[in-house]
Amino acid sequence: MLITPGPLLAKINSPDDVKKLDQAQLVQLCDELRHFIVDNVSVYGGHFGASLGVVELTVALHYVFNTPTDQLVWDVGHQAYGHKILTGRKEKFHTNRLYGGISGFPKRSESIFDTFGVGHSSTSVSAALGMAVASKYLKLDSKQHIAVIGDGAMTGGMAFEGLNHAGVSDTNLLIILNDNCMSIDPNVGALKDYLTDITTSHTYNKLKDEVWNLLGKLSTFGKSAQEIVSKVENGIKSTLLSQSNLFESLNLRYFGPVDGHDVNHLVHILNDLRDIKGPKILHCVTVKGKGYGPAEKGNATTWHAPGTFDKITGEIHKKVHEKPQPPKYQDVFGHTLVELARQNDKIVGITPAMPSGSSMNIMMKEMPERAFDVGIAEQHAVTFSAGLATQGIIPFCNIYSSFMQRAYDQVVHDVCIQNLPVNFCLDRAGFAGADGPTHHGAYDIAYFRCLPNMIVSAPMNEQELRNLMYTASLPRTEKAFSIRYPRGQGVMPEWRTPLEEIEIGKGRKLRDGDDVAILTIGHIGNYAVEVCDRLEKQGIRVGHFDMRFVKPLDAQLLHEIFSSYRKVITVEDGCVQGGFGSAVLEFMADNNYQAEVRRLGIPDDVIEHGEQLELQRDCGFDAGHIEKTVLSLLEPVSK
Amino acid sequence: MLITPGPLLAKINSPDDVKKLDQAQLVQLCDELRHFIVDNVSVYGGHFGASLGVVELTVALHYVFNTPTDQLVWDVGHQAYGHKILTGRKEKFHTNRLYGGISGFPKRSESIFDTFGVGHSSTSVSAALGMAVASKYLKLDSKQHIAVIGDGAMTGGMAFEGLNHAGVSDTNLLIILNDNCMSIDPNVGALKDYLTDITTSHTYNKLKDEVWNLLGKLSTFGKSAQEIVSKVENGIKSTLLSQSNLFESLNLRYFGPVDGHDVNHLVHILNDLRDIKGPKILHCVTVKGKGYGPAEKGNATTWHAPGTFDKITGEIHKKVHEKPQPPKYQDVFGHTLVELARQNDKIVGITPAMPSGSSMNIMMKEMPERAFDVGIAEQHAVTFSAGLATQGIIPFCNIYSSFMQRAYDQVVHDVCIQNLPVNFCLDRAGFAGADGPTHHGAYDIAYFRCLPNMIVSAPMNEQELRNLMYTASLPRTEKAFSIRYPRGQGVMPEWRTPLEEIEIGKGRKLRDGDDVAILTIGHIGNYAVEVCDRLEKQGIRVGHFDMRFVKPLDAQLLHEIFSSYRKVITVEDGCVQGGFGSAVLEFMADNNYQAEVRRLGIPDDVIEHGEQLELQRDCGFDAGHIEKTVLSLLEPVSK
Repeated sequence: MLITPGPLLAKINSPDDVKKLDQAQLVQLCDELRHFIVDNVSVYGGHFGASLGVVELTVALHYVFNTPTDQLVWDVGHQAYGHKILTGRKEKFHTNRLYGGISGFPKRSESIFDTFGVGHSSTSVSAALGMAVASKYLKLDSKQHIAVIGDGAMTGGMAFEGLNHAGVSDTNLLIILNDNCMSIDPNVGALKDYLTDITTSHTYNKLKDEVWNLLGKLSTFGKSAQEIVSKVENGIKSTLLSQSNLFESLNLRYFGPVDGHDVNHLVHILNDLRDIKGPKILHCVTVKGKGYGPAEKGNATTWHAPGTFDKITGEIHKKVHEKPQPPKYQDVFGHTLVELARQNDKIVGITPAMPSGSSMNIMMKEMPERAFDVGIAEQHAVTFSAGLATQGIIPFCNIYSSFMQRAYDQVVHDVCIQNLPVNFCLDRAGFAGADGPTHHGAYDIAYFRCLPNMIVSAPMNEQELRNLMYTASLPRTEKAFSIRYPRGQGVMPEWRTPLEEIEIGKGRKLRDGDDVAILTIGHIGNYAVEVCDRLEKQGIRVGHFDMRFVKPLDAQLLHEIFSSYRKVITVEDGCVQGGFGSAVLEFMADNNYQAEVRRLGIPDDVIEHGEQLELQRDCGFDAGHIEKTVLSLLEPVSK
Repeated sequence: MLITPGPLLAKINSPDDVKKLDQAQLVQLCDELRHFIVDNVSVYGGHFGASLGVVELTVALHYVFNTPTDQLVWDVGHQAYGHKILTGRKEKFHTNRLYGGISGFPKRSESIFDTFGVGHSSTSVSAALGMAVASKYLKLDSKQHIAVIGDGAMTGGMAFEGLNHAGVSDTNLLIILNDNCMSIDPNVGALKDYLTDITTSHTYNKLKDEVWNLLGKLSTFGKSAQEIVSKVENGIKSTLLSQSNLFESLNLRYFGPVDGHDVNHLVHILNDLRDIKGPKILHCVTVKGKGYGPAEKGNATTWHAPGTFDKITGEIHKKVHEKPQPPKYQDVFGHTLVELARQNDKIVGITPAMPSGSSMNIMMKEMPERAFDVGIAEQHAVTFSAGLATQGIIPFCNIYSSFMQRAYDQVVHDVCIQNLPVNFCLDRAGFAGADGPTHHGAYDIAYFRCLPNMIVSAPMNEQELRNLMYTASLPRTEKAFSIRYPRGQGVMPEWRTPLEEIEIGKGRKLRDGDDVAILTIGHIGNYAVEVCDRLEKQGIRVGHFDMRFVKPLDAQLLHEIFSSYRKVITVEDGCVQGGFGSAVLEFMADNNYQAEVRRLGIPDDVIEHGEQLELQRDCGFDAGHIEKTVLSLLEPVSK
């Protein structure tokens, strides 16, 4: 089913078409764009609230700026659906986030209008500044560079690093602060409070009017505009902003706050700002989900990415299952953490802006004083956890595998080198699915197992996750303990099993075999179970070992395996370079074992978006490929 | 030679002894402490300027606060010599930074007074906040938590993430901003300008006096102190700071700026601040190298860590060599970059606050518009480079191996996934030497080689470094190119060799052998040359291959090697888990080769400080151990 765009939107195939419109038509275009997004997402799913919030901004930006020559960078990219629709991808938009379809995020290889690929937050200032500095160096003086960044992303330290540099750069950089008081969950921290203060304070609003009244006259002044601006600035300096606000402190000219849903006003302002040289920031106040009643009035977190829904009633479709379903791993984490915390008052939880994504919201609700949402701030989350650990607290720091990349040094420098007992739970390990390459958790096994004082584990099912968490919660004086698990459901509808300690570094033999042994780590082991069952029915007995720990490896079990099997398959939902299979090869080499080893996992490539199963099949480690690999090893003429 | 402390310092064995002093004696203690540092560093070397700059602060902190119950966290830790000397390590201080001696940085395993290990910057706010939140949760209401952080470290985004959280925490956290306008090199960026503004502006100074006059009366008011503070605050709000400064924006009470060299004033202020609940920041203005004329007047970068010097004349000792010496790798980088940039105007350089450490200062001097010091901001440095690359610029982003850990996600997300042609030069790869575990570049091979679109290379000597840089500078449309090289000298006194392109992924056969092949990566290959020479004289012919590239591996050369040799030794100055040797094992497994392989490199442990050669020996990959390994493989009864 293809969604029909409104009459104006139907004619828009590129920003050039937007520019041809009369300004008076922009309100209608916004309306049509909004409907088109609602229609599409309600039927096909995807991110929702963020894009609705920037409809007017998106139209105004493409109306005013000369994209793609002018460089427009969207931070995170959840909000770029309107941008995609206006820049030639309207017809493909129903393939958004589907296997083989367009990406849910801006992506350089997809369009020249996507100047910088995103997915993770807080990168836009640095990227746009890089472009702006390049333009300055190349003497492209009229070229504009715009970063659109949310107030949530602004809490990421990297954004601050970019601002610090931007403030002393003499470049055509415009930072648009899209202030909706939200990350995926409500934004937190001192910066949020500050922005709310600005937005609601009378002095600022008075100032705002003054500035904009003056700026309103700019266009008529032509070349003397600069002079006027400087006058305005002096005016501000001598009266209200004499002590400057946070952004002015960093030498960025601050404008706003302005209503981000008044497209005509936005066009006016952006036209003015275009003529003002140097780095500057425009503070836009927007509402996530704007223009769609249920999203505006409802829970913004729910409407961040609601799945499909009835656009008339606003009812979100829920799958109805006949049989009880296995829970999501994240929920097993969330509930088990509370269960453990009830028994041990030293346990606390830490999440960098992912309460609902990690299900730590369960703990935040039940024991708010013991669960910390620290904002989009992975680096801080890890070192904050390390600080807690020094005082005898038992921190469970939950960070998605791909976001953990952002706190890598903190894990090395503040946790592992100091040998502190911090627990890391890495959600979304393996393929993230529709979010695609920026969100796949492909590298954590490789980048964690090379670190000293780090335990690397992965549960094969819910019970194992609970037991690993229980084990990690027991008092110990050293070693970081990481537990990785995938996005999505486990395999045990009855998952509330009794908690049992697991010996650190012990794997499990699940089944004996004759010639071939399959060694798995994590949830992916369930594929091997399926394969072994199938093959057994054909009279082929294949050994299967759930290693549980990549580090320390179960040496005893590996000695047993390599003494009995000459053909070994390792399976992991992580990169094969340096991953679990590689650890097994190291064990072999160090112990002088010879065996034929096939390593299945994520190959050395950027893996695009799609359903997890589709991607696993493409990468050759779904059940079918595991079976094929077993059979190929059993062929009489193997090399 | 042991340095004799002054009479007061001689009696100080712990902060308790400091507290026993009459306040009137503190100036003398500062004087003696300063002399003790000068005496020691002039003879034994070490970091210098930073510790001299905080002598008064150090004494005042230990005089006022109840360390180690109160938690004192030093950011970076270059400045903690005085702290070490006052906390029981005076007698050992001459072993500072020496193999087996005390660490040059605070270190938890060394002293209970070292609450958090450091080395990398910008971690102190997060760590101290973690401790403060723990204390609050544990109802230790009187416990204090102090982070001392420089203005350079404050530019690191992680510090901002910590501030954002601190501002909404109701904890006993005191952040002391040690503002000396320096990192190792002069501090840069908008924040520095802002701090300078505050420090020099009359209004702020007037305000400062007012506040401190009022605060001065606090102690006499006892319990009503809170009320007074709130009055003072209202006074500030209604007059000068009504629009709040940057830190007040983040809901941190801001005090200062104060003179960081007036120990009595500091004691007074710290006593007052102790009684003020909630997160707060004290802005101290200090001078790096304070109290030692040559350092105060001279170049602060030179005096950051001057080596040994004549304390009377201030003359820094320089080694005089009879023969021409090989250059430092960093200088080969610095000069070659300029040489390349002269020939290609698309080339630029980026350093995060390490102009002198990376020798990018050569380019900054010669072509200032093309070399960017972005502050202590590794994340920004990488994504800024990616932004430049999108515009056809050829960035050489130079980051120490251990600091690159801090920009890991940016390398993954902004460079590799987007397949952008950014060049990374990783200085200090392998052992950093006296700086110790926080600075060792142990993991980069493992954490880079698992990434798609990443070329991983290491030169064996100066010529190879130049050729790799030249190759990386040639126009290409994709792939990140990383070049790692160690701290210290190369091997070629005549290093200005003609620039030649190297085929990407091609290794070099240096010598044929009979039974054993040694595969090396990088500078460490010179040890193998030495070993092969020595063994050849004994009639033992050992093959040696300088692989040059960890990724892509030279498959052709490896096929040749594994077809000819059944015994292989891999040598790398990186972690053996997942490193170069592991890549070789993967090749073997994927191609069904069987061979006995010994992997030499950094073992799975935290390696302490010491001379590079000492550490390599301990880790078993110096020339001696390589030779031993060859001989053991040649023994007739090898397993």
